[in-house]
Amino acid sequence: MELGEFSIIKQFFSSCGAKKSDCLLAVGDDAALLQTSSSQILVATQDTLVAAVHFFPDTDPEALGHKALAVNLSDLAAMGAKPAWFTLGLTIPQIDTKWLQAFASGLCSLATSTNTQLIGGDTTSGPLAISITALGWLPAFNNALLRSGAKPGDHIYVSGTLGDAGLALHQLTQGSAVSTMARKRLERPTPRLKLGQALLGLANAAIDISDGLLADLGHILTNSNVGAVVYLAAIPHSSVFKNYLEQGGDPMLAVTAGDDYELCFTVPSQNIGDLMDIATSLSCPIAYIGEISSEPGLRLYDSNKNIVTPQRHGYAHF
Amino acid sequence: MELGEFSIIKQFFSSCGAKKSDCLLAVGDDAALLQTSSSQILVATQDTLVAAVHFFPDTDPEALGHKALAVNLSDLAAMGAKPAWFTLGLTIPQIDTKWLQAFASGLCSLATSTNTQLIGGDTTSGPLAISITALGWLPAFNNALLRSGAKPGDHIYVSGTLGDAGLALHQLTQGSAVSTMARKRLERPTPRLKLGQALLGLANAAIDISDGLLADLGHILTNSNVGAVVYLAAIPHSSVFKNYLEQGGDPMLAVTAGDDYELCFTVPSQNIGDLMDIATSLSCPIAYIGEISSEPGLRLYDSNKNIVTPQRHGYAHF
Repeated sequence: MELGEFSIIKQFFSSCGAKKSDCLLAVGDDAALLQTSSSQILVATQDTLVAAVHFFPDTDPEALGHKALAVNLSDLAAMGAKPAWFTLGLTIPQIDTKWLQAFASGLCSLATSTNTQLIGGDTTSGPLAISITALGWLPAFNNALLRSGAKPGDHIYVSGTLGDAGLALHQLTQGSAVSTMARKRLERPTPRLKLGQALLGLANAAIDISDGLLADLGHILTNSNVGAVVYLAAIPHSSVFKNYLEQGGDPMLAVTAGDDYELCFTVPSQNIGDLMDIATSLSCPIAYIGEISSEPGLRLYDSNKNIVTPQRHGYAHF
Repeated sequence: MELGEFSIIKQFFSSCGAKKSDCLLAVGDDAALLQTSSSQILVATQDTLVAAVHFFPDTDPEALGHKALAVNLSDLAAMGAKPAWFTLGLTIPQIDTKWLQAFASGLCSLATSTNTQLIGGDTTSGPLAISITALGWLPAFNNALLRSGAKPGDHIYVSGTLGDAGLALHQLTQGSAVSTMARKRLERPTPRLKLGQALLGLANAAIDISDGLLADLGHILTNSNVGAVVYLAAIPHSSVFKNYLEQGGDPMLAVTAGDDYELCFTVPSQNIGDLMDIATSLSCPIAYIGEISSEPGLRLYDSNKNIVTPQRHGYAHF
């Protein structure tokens, strides 16, 4: 049997080394939560992007620098954490000054705008890959946005629109014309940091959509021991994605493609008024897409109230 | 002009993103020092090992797991820090259960023996590489073992013996018989954590020898604006390395080859008595190899008191 990413972690790395009481949350969520001697909680996460696996080798290096940090900040956002610092493990086949300049520009620009500082790392020679570790802070552990906190009756929301990055990747792979907007969504995702921080105390669970909604929501369901009903008609689409659908495109792309880096989160009904106020004050579009149920499994309904059985749930790492 | 690793960092990443007052030491040392709200200092470091660059692709995966963490812990040791947690960015071409098991075993065994916990990371598909970020604690910032603290008159010491790892690499590359001891030094280095922690308040500067003594001591000299005199005859050699020398081997290998992961540190004369006591109580061999001078540059003397001009100073990353 072939192992997936999560089985590998579970089998080989879920209990590795000392069991420290100051590690409040380790392997298995978007980020690790660490008790410092202060009242704040340190948050750490690491994401690697490998050429020809996570991005086309000829990707604009400025966009790549942005994305390499953005995917990590997105993990912090999904915990409700405020980013502080990051380390950069950069592996490059050769020294290309122009490439490095552009890469650093994209990286540093996002770091500056999110008040995050590069504090170290390692630059090595080898096949192009970027591995960033981001560190941030949470005011308290008890309201962190874990994957395990969803409760039956919670309303499920997503931020922004889904499927744009997947559409761009689909078009690039097909060699067809790529919408500028979709390509921007694929190459320069915006981590939802402010939304994540505002959800502290309001949402019961959250995850960032990196592998596709069905796959990522699936992690919340598994970790929370709950199920969900999701309405395909409620999935928010951009005008570009709507165009694609009108030309006979696959609506499942919006719920199975990764790389959108929007947040998916679950909110108990009594907090929905506060949630609407937050979405308004942050000018952050959010959409209700379904509900958490006690019955296990994810039930996806089309607009005719028929159950849809997806061929795949999301991006498979292996 | 081709850039080296350090020029790349300086040119593209030394000032990247926000300038935070809570980042006490960023790019340019063995690890970053971060002010938490508590009295302790958080220490973060990241090191990447790439197949065919840092290790032979057929390296025993158990040893590789050990080494991937050891090189990071060695950086913490060189700051005097106590390790706490680490994240693992693991990139593998395919899923090989046996390989993963052995890798995890080597990794977790060192993590356990050093009271360090794996707290997260990322597993991706791609050319074999391991990027670990280690986090640790320092009791205070004012006596951390920086590269910039060396003072004229300081005695320069190294721990253990030098050249063993370089000898093993030389023998493996030549296809000649490899000593078991030298190979162990290359593949399973021991981070000098206890020594590093004991040097707090005693040593003015420290670095771990990963790229070769001359290159790494060179970083101390540059960052401290000082020079040094080093005596080739004082470099500590193992019996295996002595054998190699007796058979006409190159004595420069011990000061230019990397991968030994011993500490090189500078100690003011008034602290030398305390240093001897520590070396004894830790059963950690240390050797005096020279002195820091105000005159810039590194002057290497052979046993006839002639200046030696090395062809190279250490491992070049590009």
